[in-house]
Amino acid sequence: MPSPAQATTAASGAVRADGRTPGQLRPISITRGWSNQAEGSALIEFGNTRVLCTASVTEGVPRWLKGEGRGWVTAEYAMLPRATNTRSDRESVKGRIGGRTHEISRLIGRSLRSVIDTRALGENTIVLDCDVLQADGGTRTAAITGAFVALADAVRWAKDNRLIARGAKPLTGTVAAVSVGIIDGVPMLDLPYVEDVRAETDMNVVVTGSGKFVEVQGTAEGAPFDRDELNALLDLALAGTAQLAQIQRETLADTAAEVIGG
Amino acid sequence: MPSPAQATTAASGAVRADGRTPGQLRPISITRGWSNQAEGSALIEFGNTRVLCTASVTEGVPRWLKGEGRGWVTAEYAMLPRATNTRSDRESVKGRIGGRTHEISRLIGRSLRSVIDTRALGENTIVLDCDVLQADGGTRTAAITGAFVALADAVRWAKDNRLIARGAKPLTGTVAAVSVGIIDGVPMLDLPYVEDVRAETDMNVVVTGSGKFVEVQGTAEGAPFDRDELNALLDLALAGTAQLAQIQRETLADTAAEVIGG
Amino acid sequence: MPSPAQATTAASGAVRADGRTPGQLRPISITRGWSNQAEGSALIEFGNTRVLCTASVTEGVPRWLKGEGRGWVTAEYAMLPRATNTRSDRESVKGRIGGRTHEISRLIGRSLRSVIDTRALGENTIVLDCDVLQADGGTRTAAITGAFVALADAVRWAKDNRLIARGAKPLTGTVAAVSVGIIDGVPMLDLPYVEDVRAETDMNVVVTGSGKFVEVQGTAEGAPFDRDELNALLDLALAGTAQLAQIQRETLADTAAEVIGG
Amino acid sequence: MPSPAQATTAASGAVRADGRTPGQLRPISITRGWSNQAEGSALIEFGNTRVLCTASVTEGVPRWLKGEGRGWVTAEYAMLPRATNTRSDRESVKGRIGGRTHEISRLIGRSLRSVIDTRALGENTIVLDCDVLQADGGTRTAAITGAFVALADAVRWAKDNRLIARGAKPLTGTVAAVSVGIIDGVPMLDLPYVEDVRAETDMNVVVTGSGKFVEVQGTAEGAPFDRDELNALLDLALAGTAQLAQIQRETLADTAAEVIGG
Amino acid sequence: MPSPAQATTAASGAVRADGRTPGQLRPISITRGWSNQAEGSALIEFGNTRVLCTASVTEGVPRWLKGEGRGWVTAEYAMLPRATNTRSDRESVKGRIGGRTHEISRLIGRSLRSVIDTRALGENTIVLDCDVLQADGGTRTAAITGAFVALADAVRWAKDNRLIARGAKPLTGTVAAVSVGIIDGVPMLDLPYVEDVRAETDMNVVVTGSGKFVEVQGTAEGAPFDRDELNALLDLALAGTAQLAQIQRETLADTAAEVIGG
Amino acid sequence: MPSPAQATTAASGAVRADGRTPGQLRPISITRGWSNQAEGSALIEFGNTRVLCTASVTEGVPRWLKGEGRGWVTAEYAMLPRATNTRSDRESVKGRIGGRTHEISRLIGRSLRSVIDTRALGENTIVLDCDVLQADGGTRTAAITGAFVALADAVRWAKDNRLIARGAKPLTGTVAAVSVGIIDGVPMLDLPYVEDVRAETDMNVVVTGSGKFVEVQGTAEGAPFDRDELNALLDLALAGTAQLAQIQRETLADTAAEVIGG
Repeated sequence: MPSPAQATTAASGAVRADGRTPGQLRPISITRGWSNQAEGSALIEFGNTRVLCTASVTEGVPRWLKGEGRGWVTAEYAMLPRATNTRSDRESVKGRIGGRTHEISRLIGRSLRSVIDTRALGENTIVLDCDVLQADGGTRTAAITGAFVALADAVRWAKDNRLIARGAKPLTGTVAAVSVGIIDGVPMLDLPYVEDVRAETDMNVVVTGSGKFVEVQGTAEGAPFDRDELNALLDLALAGTAQLAQIQRETLADTAAEVIGG
Repeated sequence: MPSPAQATTAASGAVRADGRTPGQLRPISITRGWSNQAEGSALIEFGNTRVLCTASVTEGVPRWLKGEGRGWVTAEYAMLPRATNTRSDRESVKGRIGGRTHEISRLIGRSLRSVIDTRALGENTIVLDCDVLQADGGTRTAAITGAFVALADAVRWAKDNRLIARGAKPLTGTVAAVSVGIIDGVPMLDLPYVEDVRAETDMNVVVTGSGKFVEVQGTAEGAPFDRDELNALLDLALAGTAQLAQIQRETLADTAAEVIGG
Repeated sequence: MPSPAQATTAASGAVRADGRTPGQLRPISITRGWSNQAEGSALIEFGNTRVLCTASVTEGVPRWLKGEGRGWVTAEYAMLPRATNTRSDRESVKGRIGGRTHEISRLIGRSLRSVIDTRALGENTIVLDCDVLQADGGTRTAAITGAFVALADAVRWAKDNRLIARGAKPLTGTVAAVSVGIIDGVPMLDLPYVEDVRAETDMNVVVTGSGKFVEVQGTAEGAPFDRDELNALLDLALAGTAQLAQIQRETLADTAAEVIGG
Repeated sequence: MPSPAQATTAASGAVRADGRTPGQLRPISITRGWSNQAEGSALIEFGNTRVLCTASVTEGVPRWLKGEGRGWVTAEYAMLPRATNTRSDRESVKGRIGGRTHEISRLIGRSLRSVIDTRALGENTIVLDCDVLQADGGTRTAAITGAFVALADAVRWAKDNRLIARGAKPLTGTVAAVSVGIIDGVPMLDLPYVEDVRAETDMNVVVTGSGKFVEVQGTAEGAPFDRDELNALLDLALAGTAQLAQIQRETLADTAAEVIGG
Repeated sequence: MPSPAQATTAASGAVRADGRTPGQLRPISITRGWSNQAEGSALIEFGNTRVLCTASVTEGVPRWLKGEGRGWVTAEYAMLPRATNTRSDRESVKGRIGGRTHEISRLIGRSLRSVIDTRALGENTIVLDCDVLQADGGTRTAAITGAFVALADAVRWAKDNRLIARGAKPLTGTVAAVSVGIIDGVPMLDLPYVEDVRAETDMNVVVTGSGKFVEVQGTAEGAPFDRDELNALLDLALAGTAQLAQIQRETLADTAAEVIGG
Repeated sequence: MPSPAQATTAASGAVRADGRTPGQLRPISITRGWSNQAEGSALIEFGNTRVLCTASVTEGVPRWLKGEGRGWVTAEYAMLPRATNTRSDRESVKGRIGGRTHEISRLIGRSLRSVIDTRALGENTIVLDCDVLQADGGTRTAAITGAFVALADAVRWAKDNRLIARGAKPLTGTVAAVSVGIIDGVPMLDLPYVEDVRAETDMNVVVTGSGKFVEVQGTAEGAPFDRDELNALLDLALAGTAQLAQIQRETLADTAAEVIGG
């Protein structure tokens, strides 16, 4: 597997069950091109969380967008039934998609669209499928971070195959996401499952490579949180996503200049 | 209709299409007991947005919570097909609930649970139905704010009917929500539909009566936002929810002391 | 709320729980234009039964009717989960529409089409949504009676907006509906829930403003009924719908001449 | 096939496409015991309309009826995809049951329950399945008439197998149904498809063997109808169902005394 | 009912519950034209198993086949709820089609397409509906055998109605199917339900009139089977389908030469 | 990745697109324990076909099996949307499982149950999830072969955790599967997608470690096949599954003796 990235932000003296400091990411691994079928793909790992992200390119756009000279990017998130410690029923068997799945699919789609120049994309559609093969907390943030890599490769493929104009750079930058939370009063970065269930406040933050917010979704699981706590969490999230952006740039070193403008 | 509440926070000199200043709420109206069938109910209006909130009390809890001596509060949000300017197909006719509906139902449920002491509630379940009769932006925030009033009356009913112990105060405080957004660079409070579609950044903030955050959900619809913009929006939201909390307290004047502890 | 209409048909000396004589309607109220989104709307009340009726106009007709120069009118009925004394699961959550809902939607649609001149309507479609906000018996008859008012306003709107030819009068008359039933051997008009569940025979009758039958749906809930009982019920229904037609005419006083021909 | 029944009610001089007078039934045939799997069964034919009715007996009742010492009878109606002139999609393939199917299933169930003494039935459930193998108008009335025969045999089977007490007679009488309609101003009995589509008014009438009404469902397909027309249709329906009751009695000659009381 | 066909292949001295020898078919009956609505139809009986097969012809083909000058044949299999000894819930009521139904529908479609010359069929679609009215084992093999007869009549109808060219013979031969199995170590032909549930190995074999295999589906229900057992079963199946092919030819005597080429 | 297994059965002189001889398997790889969440798991590869198989153990059995002292094994098969060259819609999004999915899930379940001693398993349930991550022909045969490995590990886990008695050996042997087909008249083993679509006859064969048949599913995609062709295919399949059984034994070397009896 590719070289993982690690970070040691000495936010406090606390040591976590897995030996990390509060401001440290789990080992991050991105395997580009894991699938030989999709136009772009990445198997991303945030510790034990493993998400397979594939990008599918098709010419044309949904009916409501036709004739406007703009493209479309959307995403679907799902979890294998035994990605988790206990088996869940398949949504295909239940015949309906749960609220959580819908919510995360929408979040991933919005996050990716925040760095897409739909004009430069032309009338093409890219669908990102993010399937969680193994879940250990932070699946949605891993999905966003990995889907960006698959998306970049798909854009590259589309340029190579003349679906997108030669000079066009449909990506306006990178985008990555991380979870943060407060556990026993200590703000922590990139929560695995055991920390996630204990967090009083849980926040998912999506940030561009230039350090601006795309999504801030904070939820008080236990007691409501105040302005100071919110600020501490945002600080951690900005530091963590900056590292993820760096890993994305390195992973895409041969392609980034071709597809990312801005 | 009850007396509306208005606020004039002179955040800037800008005047909005409906004559409000950037930091001013729309006229707010809460009609308690609009339904004679439910244990608690409120028709809440944020300007032209009208949501009917009903609270249904049943003894007992879902199977997964049985025997723990704690209660449960959940919510369902829906919109009448012609609540909006263009008719939408009914989700019952389509046979599936959309992602947006799921997402908002879950948000309302989490928000109300943040002020519930489930032990004090005892093994009772309260379901909040929030049906949007007329939509003009901010339906989810109106739903949360109105559902709290219906919930308080339902708790009162449950106490009067001996489902909840005499001295118990299952509510730990009030909770209200408001939308904020940036339009043409100006942060604004409580967006009607015409403003909502133009906002570069859109945020829904759920805040307790004591000014702590329960949910912060910010989304960059256009360009990503920076830390200063985020802070300006949070300032507006805290001011707006403080006014809504005041209106809730006034509306529930005869009941609040009976059901709200903390 | 608008002035209610009352009737005192001294059909017998019996006095009902709510003080009415057997041949008397409950207080009837019709609030035109309750919604500011729909092309036509009415909140109708038969006592405690409250139904919000909205009419949505769209140009064009369903595929099977295209090119015939005729319009289409259809209806959908639904009940809020807590319109009744006990909460029901939402049909959108269950993923399927129940038989009762289907049956009533079809009845309302047929009833309204009985007074529509589809040629005069032109190739336009009007959908009537009848959502029961509070239920106390007679929801389908209130829905038909209120939907007619919303329909008339929608036709007026379509004429004002040039979708329908200036001189056209697409309505051939008015239509209203009422329930009748036999309780303890006494035929009674306009049954609230407490009477409905006790009725041996239950009948819904839809009648035009000129006193002709559009639908007669009688069901023996207990013992089968004979010809004399059927006749007594029809007498009551004709008297009741005549009063409702009168209220409809008064409510639509400023518009009726514009849209109703025949 | 069993001997058909015919009627010559000289209601008028009109002769119909199939040679019948206005008041004459189509040839009626009931084949008892067509299925060797069900506890009761009948293949009923009203002219070219063919419905297979089976009755399934199970001990016990639905949860909501448990412990009351009463039984339950219900029905499901369906049509084979090519029962009609043009193939329809299967409801199982579409994944939802249409309104018409629901409506007719409910009608059949109510009609049969009108002649059931649920106490005498004991805590047993009988499900009537009415599957239209070939459709030529009047499928719901044929279904009711045939289902009664299957029901009687199922009750007999349940008595023979000691599920129902020896002396009990759970049926309080017979029940049959017929369609009537007005075509070119002439009231006619038992409409085949070609007449049904031309009828201005269409009525389905369910009548007990003693000539009392169980259901009267009249619909103006074209112009509304007046009291005289309604009366003429009811006269025809009573005459038609009297003949059907006679055929039912003859078909069940060996069993009727055992299971029908009243 | 038409004359049944019987076979006495003295495969062993064993006598079965119904008096047959191991290599003997049940009485076979095919009633052509049982339905007067479909373009082709057959009620086929393998002993007590009764399947109604109808063939529906429509001009045109599914979208994915358009403009290729070829036709399409497909099939849908279903069972009435009380075709079996115990009532099953309707798939339309459950809202989803079970795996077994899907699997058999696909098998029937593939089997019929194996004898279709899609070019000769022209751009027409034929849908075969196979509805099991009574089930006693071997419903899928009866369905294939009967559907072929309905298909031949539908092709004849399409030729008579000029949808298919005059000289064209879209069928390349006949196709029939039979079940075989090993019971108490003895290979047996055409299993009724009581034998089917006891079989250690169960095989359905679809064979053309010229004795070639279209489908071989063998399943070890108990112990796995060896090569010799497989061969014995195939011998029985070839003998059985040869007899069925003979019956099909006789049944279609007046039409076969018109529609079957090859 | 683990060492692949290869076979060179010189069935003919033909050379295939990927360089194999007709009787040669693709490179086979089995990664045991790919998932750290499931009780047993294997990522199996037949060339480019990759299937993740997980086994989930739960105490207890489905209701219909309770109290019989026997266990249950079942399987669910699914494909990621972009496992194939063109993206497919998710079955969870479509709201229904397709016939192919159902059919393969049932096949896998039956195949595994053929080597299970349900008494020795005790009242435990094992669910095998087979998710195709990348598809290149033979997904169902890879799934069966890999699922057996996951199943063996799950049985081992259940023994280690005292759910299964110490001395019990719930597996009666191994089971593996392979596809065979005739292409341009040449019988070939283990078809990748490009061969699969060209095959005149396609057969999936499931065989125990002792060389007996569990399932034989042969389908004529083009021309029907004769007895000789069937025999040639079965010869290839027996040789191929013998090699797969050898690989399974090697992979499970440390566990086989503990869980496999017979």
